[in-house]
Amino acid sequence: MINLKNIKVISFDADDTLWQNEKLFRKTECDFCKLMAHYIEPTKALKILWNMEVKNIPCYGYGIKAFVLDMLEAALKISKGKMTAAETKQIINLGKKLIKSPIVLFEGAENTLKKLSKKYKIIVTTKGDLLEQENKVYRSGLIKYLRHIEVMSEKNKTSYVRLIKELNIKPKEFLMVGNSVKSDILPVLALGANAVFIPSQFTWFYEDGDASKIPSKNFMKLEKISQLIKML
Amino acid sequence: MINLKNIKVISFDADDTLWQNEKLFRKTECDFCKLMAHYIEPTKALKILWNMEVKNIPCYGYGIKAFVLDMLEAALKISKGKMTAAETKQIINLGKKLIKSPIVLFEGAENTLKKLSKKYKIIVTTKGDLLEQENKVYRSGLIKYLRHIEVMSEKNKTSYVRLIKELNIKPKEFLMVGNSVKSDILPVLALGANAVFIPSQFTWFYEDGDASKIPSKNFMKLEKISQLIKML
Repeated sequence: MINLKNIKVISFDADDTLWQNEKLFRKTECDFCKLMAHYIEPTKALKILWNMEVKNIPCYGYGIKAFVLDMLEAALKISKGKMTAAETKQIINLGKKLIKSPIVLFEGAENTLKKLSKKYKIIVTTKGDLLEQENKVYRSGLIKYLRHIEVMSEKNKTSYVRLIKELNIKPKEFLMVGNSVKSDILPVLALGANAVFIPSQFTWFYEDGDASKIPSKNFMKLEKISQLIKML
Repeated sequence: MINLKNIKVISFDADDTLWQNEKLFRKTECDFCKLMAHYIEPTKALKILWNMEVKNIPCYGYGIKAFVLDMLEAALKISKGKMTAAETKQIINLGKKLIKSPIVLFEGAENTLKKLSKKYKIIVTTKGDLLEQENKVYRSGLIKYLRHIEVMSEKNKTSYVRLIKELNIKPKEFLMVGNSVKSDILPVLALGANAVFIPSQFTWFYEDGDASKIPSKNFMKLEKISQLIKML
């Protein structure tokens, strides 16, 4: 349970909490596997790509540019160094298409932010590529409800401690809402702040986590973002 | 002239103000031109690469990952679609090498931050890729003198206004130190804050600007970072 009367700042994760994101990456993965189909079968291509993504996180971090470089390196491996210039170009274009994808808000996201912004300070806390994430927030049309956009290189306890310090509040006054157990829930609970988990239809394999064993202190699970209005 | 007794926060640009950066990019550009030498002469290759960089800024922003994707797209153009997989791989490796380059501090940078941090709140304000810039600050060994790292997607007036608001100070209490007229000096002076320009040996063509016509109000030019100690 969450002690609601303490809450001053509500922080929303962005991708797959406010709008669709992972679905677009899945579509791009499919396109990549099709492009590689004359070298290798799709499930094997996907496995090589996923391994490349994890391997390159310390070097590239998160976001679409990293993902494009991962696809290129995976294609070099899959094609055993036979990848054509046309394939290199197609992979670069998959990335540009992904960067320019329209933002599809989840049902109820805008109304929820609108209502909650009348009573609470609302911010967005997201991970990944700075320009990419800022652009998505601007293009989402939600900026008018937000008091701050925080883009972190990693959503870990250290990053949240710094954010809460900068917000000049106590951990118990902070509520994080997100779809990733690993990035939005566990580090926030670990420092005594509050977290609401809203699972999304698609979650990146790297962010998957088991929410069933999380103790209920400072924690709740909801099905839809609009349920926050009733709760708060 | 700068009214020094007002200053509370000194903000340093990172690349080419605290440490060498552009020199490494120049070296990588040379390596790229060598790689392309069997298609086209180096000056022409460089021009195509520079045009590609500027064209892609709205899509990719700044930083090494963007630069690698620019090199790949430039190579596709230079080779007229004949680029080999080996060349794609070599370009990706040029990027990884650049990401892992050791940080070479400018002479006097550490001592200057050390001394000034006893009297002022010192922060770093930089532009570009979030993970990349944070990693450079951590690897520089300068983090112990810093109270905040601000990575902006663009160093414009809007970004500085937000930063000064978050620092909870007045513009006249803020001093920015940097090597780019366009990013470190003009937007800062435009909002009534102070700026010190320290030209560096190498400046990215995109950041070049004429400092000779800047009025002296709130502004100074120094030759070396260590001169700040005497001044402040």
